[in-house]
Amino acid sequence: MSIPANDPKKRSWIDVDKNSDFPIQNIPFGVYSTEATGVRVCTAISDFVVDLFELAKAGLLANVGIEESAYAQPVLNSVMKSGKAGIRKLRSRLSELLDENNSDLRDDAALRELVIKKQTDVEMLLPVQVGDYTDFYSSIEHATNVGTMFRDPNNALLPNWKHIPVGYHGRSSSIIPSGVPIHRPVGQTRPDDSAPPVFGPCKLLDFELETAFVTFEGKPLGDRISTSEADDYIFGLMLFNDWSARDIQKWEYVPLGPFLAKNFASSVSPWIVTLDALEPFRVEGPKQDPPVLPYLECEGNKNIDLNLSVLIKPENSDEHTVCESNFKYMYWSMNQQLAHHTVNGCNVKCGDMMGSGTISGKEPSSYGSMLELSWKGTKPIQMPDGSERKFLQDGDTVIMRGHCQKDGVRVGFGEVSNKILPAK
Amino acid sequence: MSIPANDPKKRSWIDVDKNSDFPIQNIPFGVYSTEATGVRVCTAISDFVVDLFELAKAGLLANVGIEESAYAQPVLNSVMKSGKAGIRKLRSRLSELLDENNSDLRDDAALRELVIKKQTDVEMLLPVQVGDYTDFYSSIEHATNVGTMFRDPNNALLPNWKHIPVGYHGRSSSIIPSGVPIHRPVGQTRPDDSAPPVFGPCKLLDFELETAFVTFEGKPLGDRISTSEADDYIFGLMLFNDWSARDIQKWEYVPLGPFLAKNFASSVSPWIVTLDALEPFRVEGPKQDPPVLPYLECEGNKNIDLNLSVLIKPENSDEHTVCESNFKYMYWSMNQQLAHHTVNGCNVKCGDMMGSGTISGKEPSSYGSMLELSWKGTKPIQMPDGSERKFLQDGDTVIMRGHCQKDGVRVGFGEVSNKILPAK
Repeated sequence: MSIPANDPKKRSWIDVDKNSDFPIQNIPFGVYSTEATGVRVCTAISDFVVDLFELAKAGLLANVGIEESAYAQPVLNSVMKSGKAGIRKLRSRLSELLDENNSDLRDDAALRELVIKKQTDVEMLLPVQVGDYTDFYSSIEHATNVGTMFRDPNNALLPNWKHIPVGYHGRSSSIIPSGVPIHRPVGQTRPDDSAPPVFGPCKLLDFELETAFVTFEGKPLGDRISTSEADDYIFGLMLFNDWSARDIQKWEYVPLGPFLAKNFASSVSPWIVTLDALEPFRVEGPKQDPPVLPYLECEGNKNIDLNLSVLIKPENSDEHTVCESNFKYMYWSMNQQLAHHTVNGCNVKCGDMMGSGTISGKEPSSYGSMLELSWKGTKPIQMPDGSERKFLQDGDTVIMRGHCQKDGVRVGFGEVSNKILPAK
Repeated sequence: MSIPANDPKKRSWIDVDKNSDFPIQNIPFGVYSTEATGVRVCTAISDFVVDLFELAKAGLLANVGIEESAYAQPVLNSVMKSGKAGIRKLRSRLSELLDENNSDLRDDAALRELVIKKQTDVEMLLPVQVGDYTDFYSSIEHATNVGTMFRDPNNALLPNWKHIPVGYHGRSSSIIPSGVPIHRPVGQTRPDDSAPPVFGPCKLLDFELETAFVTFEGKPLGDRISTSEADDYIFGLMLFNDWSARDIQKWEYVPLGPFLAKNFASSVSPWIVTLDALEPFRVEGPKQDPPVLPYLECEGNKNIDLNLSVLIKPENSDEHTVCESNFKYMYWSMNQQLAHHTVNGCNVKCGDMMGSGTISGKEPSSYGSMLELSWKGTKPIQMPDGSERKFLQDGDTVIMRGHCQKDGVRVGFGEVSNKILPAK
């Protein structure tokens, strides 16, 4: 599929550093807020946000077909109601307006003043109101690591794992944007199997490196979305930190799955990078063996070569990379996840979010959680300030970054970064 | 707590049969729709709905403090934003207006025409837009039955069960009101453990008899709701059928819990009966042994003596009662569920819904699912038309009803009733 806005030869009249996540080929979507403007839908280029409400007011988005008021909402949902075709039109028009050869905005100093703002001067909000949030478990390396640690190294994967993109429902209300600190959760755990459970702050606080995709309005209840239709229902992706309280999880999760171990907070990046912008970075996924059932079969390259990293910044110290992974490792693709999710007729709505599951690679340095990186706490990670980490400590900031790179074009997500405060 | 609207001596100027679920002591809330009126928030009395938008337009709800436009919404959420105090004021005012001694509406024939409609002449809608839906697993009889069938009869309850009101997140998008038919879901199952999984219509389709409570806006992320505060955050209850595909569930649910086995549809009754209206029917719950952790301790009677029944109506045949149970059997109370859910700081929003879990009693006739009633299909249920049921068949309509009765007052829920159509 050729998408004009992705043309690697395009340049903007705004200077973009080669290491920026936001060249003219990206055009992600988010919502910013300042005291002066209130909430505004925006895109990013270089270190700037571009205010779509001001562009619309100036008549520069007239042919896109999205109502002006949709650009002054606190979330992207109203804009997303225009669907794949509408968003494609919008992204294409923004690409035009930012193109070095287009003078409409470039040469209008007064309008530029209203439209273009430094990212550091605005607050980025949670970009989408999530209706339902589902989390998958689709990295074979992650599932194998967990199975090896907690079950049987020779039978690490459960019998259903290679047949089903295993998933479960999560909590939408506690999804927060980058920048919002979280309190260490408290809860019930049972550290000693021969004694009653105890109550107190979580001792094994963890991150999970994930991506999450956000959907357009799906089909009515009762209808399925096939793997080949799935792309049309995916708006874009965010970086996603699926915070986990391992000790709470261990005690609560049998038989109905994780609950309080996960729902105290889940963090997403402020920018949603469209699936369209990620098309040039598609790669083949791992071979699936045994073959999957027909409703899960997929044609074409459905994985995405997206470099991911996790950094921990201890209080009063420098950030330190603890994990470098890649979204291309995923065993199950987003298309398969969405086809599976709807095969029973379950309906998907505009603004639903689906997490990938922890993204681990084969190398120990690519494991996407402290549980795996420290191998259940048996292999502490050395930090540059001399401290070590088995799990996360109060005062730590966890930062996740991600970008694709090919043919001289880098398309990235910025970061999701949240600090851990002591338990309340 | 004395709530004037609950006074058992009250009578309405509308005649109410002693077997009606909707006397003047109930005043539940719902949303109806007709072609002429559009959507309207309403209450029920006897066989009638009472249109709150028309009452508000006529100035009769002036002192309640809820904006008129909130009564012309497709869901109750805007009305519920007024919180416990607001709803109490509204219910109290409606009780006044319907009281035999109040002439405001009684003697105004033109207004009565606008306000009072036969329930059979209107369509009742899904009463609330559910943000997050959580399902608990709080009946000890149900958990014991499941553990006995699938694990060890001598160790039926898992180690965490008596310490934690076990719960998991469900799907909000597929919650439907009474009256909407559902298609038998299709999906992946593995009937033969030595062969690969297969794909096709669910063969073990089941209901689960539950109640669900709906919340007011809770506290901010990070704060807890205690067991003693919980009542202030609960708006009311609905009857709830948590449809389940047992064969899909069996294959998918380890280790992350039920997913496609549940999210194809979940049905609720059109009326939300307020927690206030249920206060007179409070009873003591089962003794909890071992004692629970302090954050789960509860004072006072927190269970509710609510008679529940499930009926199956085969195509072209009469309805037949297959289960008679009671909400009072629950081991874990709603207060404990809500305190547990928020103990880690998880936030609850206006319109969230929490299911009780299947409500089974000690007697086999009180088991709240076909799985238990037919004991995994080993004890088929005889139907009056000569057929038998191990699980549900296409064409079956499943009907759940519920009411409280005390001191000559009956407060009920009406019913949730949905027909099963063949797989698509």
